[in-house]
Parts: sequence; structure tokens; C-alpha cells
Amino acid sequence: MRAAVLRNGSMVVRDDVADPVPGFGQVLVEVQVCGICGSDLHFVKHGRTMMELASGMEGMPDMVPTAPVDFERDVFMGHEFVGRVLEVGPDTEGPATDSLVTSVPVMLSMAGVQDMAYSNDLPAGYSERMLLSAPLALAVPNGLDPQRAALTEPMAVGLHAVNMGRLEPRTDGALVLGCGPIGLAVIAALRLRGIEPIVASDLSPARRRLAAAMGAHEVVDPQVDPEFAAWGRVSKGKTLVVFEAIGVPGILDDILRRAPRHSRVVVVGVCMQPDTVNAFYAIAKEINVQFVLGYDPAEFAASLHSIAEGDIDVGDMITGRVGLDGVAGAFAALGSPERHCKILVTPGSDA
Amino acid sequence: MRAAVLRNGSMVVRDDVADPVPGFGQVLVEVQVCGICGSDLHFVKHGRTMMELASGMEGMPDMVPTAPVDFERDVFMGHEFVGRVLEVGPDTEGPATDSLVTSVPVMLSMAGVQDMAYSNDLPAGYSERMLLSAPLALAVPNGLDPQRAALTEPMAVGLHAVNMGRLEPRTDGALVLGCGPIGLAVIAALRLRGIEPIVASDLSPARRRLAAAMGAHEVVDPQVDPEFAAWGRVSKGKTLVVFEAIGVPGILDDILRRAPRHSRVVVVGVCMQPDTVNAFYAIAKEINVQFVLGYDPAEFAASLHSIAEGDIDVGDMITGRVGLDGVAGAFAALGSPERHCKILVTPGSDA
Repeated sequence: MRAAVLRNGSMVVRDDVADPVPGFGQVLVEVQVCGICGSDLHFVKHGRTMMELASGMEGMPDMVPTAPVDFERDVFMGHEFVGRVLEVGPDTEGPATDSLVTSVPVMLSMAGVQDMAYSNDLPAGYSERMLLSAPLALAVPNGLDPQRAALTEPMAVGLHAVNMGRLEPRTDGALVLGCGPIGLAVIAALRLRGIEPIVASDLSPARRRLAAAMGAHEVVDPQVDPEFAAWGRVSKGKTLVVFEAIGVPGILDDILRRAPRHSRVVVVGVCMQPDTVNAFYAIAKEINVQFVLGYDPAEFAASLHSIAEGDIDVGDMITGRVGLDGVAGAFAALGSPERHCKILVTPGSDA
Repeated sequence: MRAAVLRNGSMVVRDDVADPVPGFGQVLVEVQVCGICGSDLHFVKHGRTMMELASGMEGMPDMVPTAPVDFERDVFMGHEFVGRVLEVGPDTEGPATDSLVTSVPVMLSMAGVQDMAYSNDLPAGYSERMLLSAPLALAVPNGLDPQRAALTEPMAVGLHAVNMGRLEPRTDGALVLGCGPIGLAVIAALRLRGIEPIVASDLSPARRRLAAAMGAHEVVDPQVDPEFAAWGRVSKGKTLVVFEAIGVPGILDDILRRAPRHSRVVVVGVCMQPDTVNAFYAIAKEINVQFVLGYDPAEFAASLHSIAEGDIDVGDMITGRVGLDGVAGAFAALGSPERHCKILVTPGSDA
């Protein structure tokens, strides 16, 4: 079958990938659509650094997928997928054939948990077909456009960040720095929770329009209207929770320097380079910094539900569609925030 | 009167300081004893940097003392003091003459709040006499040795750090990195709150002995027995709260790299240099970092009470006593953790 894979730092299309065969506990699906995640762009650029850092890191439980990726081999990617069920493995209870499903991107087996976001072995969302863990497959509610359902994963990242931020509508407000897909997902989750005010900032006019559509009460261009000044105008004495959804060096220190005393910061952007901070700022203002990653299955299911019920409208976030042959170009195009927010890959659409 | 002041980077003794006169709302005390704080050593070394950082920092409320210190002028210091009341200002309700009092080191006035820890204008604990704010003066309970009462301030810093760490005895344990006075104060507060286990580490055998005496359940030399391995041996599944009480560059990143997933970190050490961190570690493990500073008046009062009631025994922490003439030497001696923990200044003891 065909799949777009990471090889020597670029996305290339193969047509010789072995057809996956569902084993016990597995489901074979035909990928209908898969979103391109900013993490995938990060991984292409910084994947080797990530693996080096991970190899020197302690404190992770054995059950967490930390198997190193071998960059000398092809890497399968694509973790924001919706598939149509083709076949359920032997002796396995699974979803009905032809039904649409999505899933958190991990594979359960007796050997443990395998990451499907970046794998040398498991074809994922940038493939014509892929395997899922039957117990993790969630039915896409009847009638929900699979393209919208493919936004479940990034929306779950935003929901998780908001949950970890422990915001109380009565006392807390939010400032979202960066309105890419994750910043927008944070805004959507904040709005659903009834947080007010939600201030959002982005350099891109297109992304600022999306932030307003997603529910931000105040949207600013930080080059014209500094974010923390905008917050101060509308905060009404609430405690600030800053969501850092940019993920480049220097942002965290800038937040620590500028945020009001006793602010909380949720770091949901992934800065892959060593970063410099002045603890002095954070100490003087007793700032709390919560680093977050991913989501849990309940948050994933809740996000799918919110999209299906129309509580979150992700339609405007989808700015492009490509086949597998267009993946490499889409990775390049996503560097331009003015043109694109979320590009969906539809593996079945190539000529 | 006499006072030890910071001048051109060194502590020097002056004998020409104007005698303070208590105004409305003020109390004049004769300083009985004043502890030398690690922050004072930091201030001598990094004070100019602190002021530069503070001048570029936003987000502090106006009521917080941020008046810049002028290093071209003498700086009065000493904020862990106990005084004997000499005189109460006009029209002021205050403590009885000759009674012993301590206070948080700030001066209230109609103009706002003035910091007394580092001031060009207000003589403080390294002086023969000083002014206090009458409403803030706390009576040292009858019979409590003023030398022990002078440890109220650092013990309050530890109590505040533990309060900010939001530890629950049922679910949380602690690892205290660095057993100087603040690390020891953290251990004492953890023990009083019933936290178990408390693991402590320090390179110095003398400080490790103090940590055990203060109530740490497990005390390690990190060069022989890595801290996080020691924690792992005794954690019994509890969530780890790490107290960073060292405050030098590199420590925070090392904690992020080594701490178990979902750990919380309370930064109570003050690292004054720009520091490098890999957010990757913190993100992968969803670590929470709470930066803390100081204490509130209730925590200060609670610490005095704990010392007076014998719930915290600070006696062993006191390793030296000097007069004003010995302040400069004591600052130098405190660089050696094997010889000293807390040196007390008794301004009345010079020949």
C-alpha cells in the first residue's frame, strides 16, 4: 500500500509498504482523513534532538512509550486520523465493518504500549490503511463529517491544557499566546468552560480572525497592542492563566518578565531548543508554571463529543486538503500562518 | 549609632548613623540579635543584577516594595531581627517598653510599603537600633530566647514554600535539595505538616546531620547516593514534590531531567543568573513548577509560635555569633557549609 514517510529529513511517498493485517485486539481501517499536526513539523526538524533528550531523561514509567525512533529507517507518522473499518482481528470485539472510527494514537499489546505518532513499524494516518487497538476505537457519531472528526486530537490537547490549568470561571481569566491549531483548541475549551475574559494574540490577521470565531473575547496583534496590557484592560481583577502556545525560545522568559504577580502559566507549546529563563522574575512574582502534554482517553472522547454536538465548530480551522503526494508540500505550506491553519490529508484522494 | 552597611561591595561598620526617631505608627527598638540570611550574601554579590532585572520587570502591584536601591550610597541590611522596645512613637499604640518583639521586615506608612531588607534609608537588623511598624510588631513569647526567635524569618520562608507546594500527607512526599537554613526550614515545615517520606540531600555532612535532626526521614549525600534514586526507594507510590533550595544555575534543568513524571517542583532557592532549561523534559513529564518568595504575616506569626512552643527546634542551626565588627567576616565564613549554618549578629556585643 501507499504511505507518506519521513526519510532523511523529508516526507516521501512509498508504494511498497506491506499491507497491515489485524491481529488479536486490532482493527484494520482505511484512513479517510488525517490532520497534519504542528508536532509533525517539529518532529521532522527536531526529532533527533528529541530522541537524544529522551534517552538522557529519567523518571518515566515503563508503560509510557519511549521506544527510540531509528532515523536510519523510514518513520510512519500521522496521529489525527479517522478511518473506515475494513476488518476486525481474530477473536476480537470491535466496531462494525464500514463504520467510521477515531482513536488516541497508541497501540496496546501484551508487550506494552506503542506510540503510533512516530513509529518505524506501525503505519499511521499518512497511510492508505492502518491498524488500531480495538478497545481504543471510538465511533464517529452518525452524520459527523470525518474531516471535522479528525480535529478531535488537537482539540483534546487544548482541553487537557485547560484542565491542567485548573481554571475557575469565578476567579480566573486567560491569555492565549499563539493562535495556531493548539491555541485555538485552548480557546475553544476555555469558552466551553465559561472562562471570561479570554484574550488571544497572534501576529497573523487570519489566525486572529479564527481566534475570535472560536470564542476569544479580545484578540490583539501583539506588535500593535501588547498582550499583557490588553489583559490588564479587561481582567477585572481576575487571576491570569497564560497559555503559551507558541513554543519558541525566549517566550517563557518573556512571559515571566511581563505577567502579573501570582499568574499561572500553562506551557502547551513545545520549545525544542534549550531555553534561557531568569528565575528572578518568576520568584519575585511567585509564578506557577504547568507543563502539559497530550490528553487522556476521556478528554479525547469529550472533544469528539463537543465537535459532534456542535459545541465546538472546527470548520473554519480546515484550510487545505491534500493527498499523500501532497504531504511534503503541505508540511512546507504550514510554515505560512497567513495561508494555513489545519491541512487534512486524504490518502484515498491521490489520482 | 553604629551599623554594618554594604558599601562598594563590602560590609563595613559605620559609627555615624543618625539615631532613628520613632514617628507616628513606629516603634524604636534596640536590636538584640539578627540572623545573617543567605539572601544577604546573594545581594552583596548580585544586588546590581537584581535591581537591573527588577527595573525591566512588569506586573508588580504598586503596593509591593520595588524602590530601587542606590549602590552609590550605603545600604542598610539585616531582616531576621529581634529587638527590645525602647520607645513608641507619638499617638501610637505599641508594645510595652522593654518587651522583646520581632516583625516582618517592612515599614508601613501613608506613602506605601517600604522594604527594610535592603534600604538606603532605613537602618535594619545590622544596626544598634532600628524602627519597626507598630502594627507589625509581634511579641516574642515570654521566656523564648531571642536568639531562637531570630530564626522566625527563615522558618517562615520554609513554611510558605510548603504551603505553596499544596502537599497532602495522604498522597505526597518530598525531596529537599540543599540543607542550608531554607532547606532546613522546609524540612521542619514538612515534618510539622505530617508529610512522609521527607528525603533530604546535601553535599555537606554537617548539613546532613542538621537535616536529620530537623526531621528528614532519609538523608543522602548526592555524590554517593543520587537523590531521585533515594526517593524511589522510599516513595511508596506517593507523588513527589521537590524543593529546590540550592539556587545555582543548572539545578532546575537537572531536576526536570531526573524527576518522576507528574512531579511538582517548588523553587525556593534564588538563582540570580540566567538559567538554561530544556522545556522538553518538563513537557514530557507534565511537571509543575511553583516559584515562591517570602511569606505572609500569618505564616511569620505561625513560625514564631512553632519555635516558642518547641514544635521546631532551631537551636542546632545556630553555629556562630558575632558583633557588628564581625559581620564582614561572617559573610565570608558562611561560604563554608561545613562550619556554618546560621550566624547571628548581636550589635550590642562589640567591645
